[in-house]
Amino acid sequence: MSLWFQEKHHKHVRLGIRVTKQLCQRQTEFQDLAIYQSPCFGKILVLDDCLMLTEKDEFIYHEMLVHPAMAVAPQTQEVLVIGGGDGGVVRELCRYPGLVRIDLVEIDAEVTRLCRKYFPKLTASLNDPRVTITHEDGLKFVRNCKAAYDLIIVDSTDPFGPGEGLFTREFYGNCYKALRPQGILVNQHESPYYKKDAAMVRATHQRTKAVFPGNWLYQAHVPTYPSGHWLFGFLTKGLDPLKDQQSEAWEALELPCRYYNSRLHQGAFALPSYVLDLLKGKDDEKTGRLMK
Amino acid sequence: MSLWFQEKHHKHVRLGIRVTKQLCQRQTEFQDLAIYQSPCFGKILVLDDCLMLTEKDEFIYHEMLVHPAMAVAPQTQEVLVIGGGDGGVVRELCRYPGLVRIDLVEIDAEVTRLCRKYFPKLTASLNDPRVTITHEDGLKFVRNCKAAYDLIIVDSTDPFGPGEGLFTREFYGNCYKALRPQGILVNQHESPYYKKDAAMVRATHQRTKAVFPGNWLYQAHVPTYPSGHWLFGFLTKGLDPLKDQQSEAWEALELPCRYYNSRLHQGAFALPSYVLDLLKGKDDEKTGRLMK
Repeated sequence: MSLWFQEKHHKHVRLGIRVTKQLCQRQTEFQDLAIYQSPCFGKILVLDDCLMLTEKDEFIYHEMLVHPAMAVAPQTQEVLVIGGGDGGVVRELCRYPGLVRIDLVEIDAEVTRLCRKYFPKLTASLNDPRVTITHEDGLKFVRNCKAAYDLIIVDSTDPFGPGEGLFTREFYGNCYKALRPQGILVNQHESPYYKKDAAMVRATHQRTKAVFPGNWLYQAHVPTYPSGHWLFGFLTKGLDPLKDQQSEAWEALELPCRYYNSRLHQGAFALPSYVLDLLKGKDDEKTGRLMK
Repeated sequence: MSLWFQEKHHKHVRLGIRVTKQLCQRQTEFQDLAIYQSPCFGKILVLDDCLMLTEKDEFIYHEMLVHPAMAVAPQTQEVLVIGGGDGGVVRELCRYPGLVRIDLVEIDAEVTRLCRKYFPKLTASLNDPRVTITHEDGLKFVRNCKAAYDLIIVDSTDPFGPGEGLFTREFYGNCYKALRPQGILVNQHESPYYKKDAAMVRATHQRTKAVFPGNWLYQAHVPTYPSGHWLFGFLTKGLDPLKDQQSEAWEALELPCRYYNSRLHQGAFALPSYVLDLLKGKDDEKTGRLMK
């Protein structure tokens, strides 16, 4: 069997994943959606030719979107998830007995419908009574929210196509208003490695910095995303992800995490020097020519 | 131009890198060596079809093999490098004015010769007067060393082919004897992500644990290595990489590092839970089926 899904990580770099079956291929109102069966990664979800998740390693990305914030603000009760129609973020959130409401705003109803069909375990928590699903543009939804949430998680696609509005200054401003004073916004923040992605990391960081006084990035190893070096934004009105980490309270919950742990929490915020320089706006002079 | 170097990361996963020119292809006494020019990564070195380094990101791997140990033992004077014929580790070591002797033992003279030709910047430090190059099997070389070094760095190929002996218990035992009481051994320790590689990580960890009382692993993001999640072993007779880190002394040197920094040093030792479980010998029960 020699059928390969080839994802473009860069104009000149591709990750090839052998697949055994195309389970689904659909043009939705918003994007092209495909689901493949693969021998190495189990099922994989692809939107507009970008790999969104694999059964093998989605736990890394989803745990890292949820647990750092929940360990800093374990008193969190009401959460807004923007994007995330695959249910992975909601699954991690539903592990917290203290949460009382989870609003999921996914623009594309077909993503949720097809993920329910092909990823039944991943989507099981979407049936949790605390979860309300709205199919609407997150950018519009958040405009009408005032001090309504303790935590907002932006699990968007890349900043092109339907996810584009979720990387604008207007969106971050509205998220700020939608959060309570102890609120936290976590967003997927792309990769710092390839030049084009790095420019987006910098631009997004500058936009969020103009809105949130507390502004950090943290990282994880997500092998199936471009470069495998993935960043997340941690934005607050005052909370500090390192000083305010409540390890004991979090550990007392005994959650079955496979990537996140309390020591890793601190380590994830220790970024490489070239990423720190990128965020400061310094050019990587030494290999400027090679950072293509 | 549609010429691609395709590296097998797993039976069913490949990283494809567009190349514009094959600069060199040689069957040496020990292995197949190729050097390509690529638009994204600059020149890349390939041994037995495994990507060894790219000009774009070799700094990550080489900095992480050298600086964590040097920050723990800044008094280091004599260093043995096994493998590393490309000169990257030696370049990082030569930044330390306090070092008095660097012995490089590279089994394959052709690696050094061709790297000098095609990677002149990378190999420049091989001409440093403190460096002595020996072309011999590291396994044999180290048998004759007794308390001769403060630091041993094993920059080997994968544990197949010429690098195989550098993953044996005999080798680690001889390294132990070759080190002084405050000595450190750092080795490249493969990736924990794909099942076959993970088994090797576990086996290597068990072997080194039987020899070195101080035994840690740390990690870095090396995007062009399989999974991008790379591990390094930090083995000592007593020193502790976290408690004995001498940040101030290290920072006073003002080295031009682009990946390593003192905060990242601590963070690099904070491993994901699934990696900790792997090292403890626990199976990843939840996705055992998918961890192929």
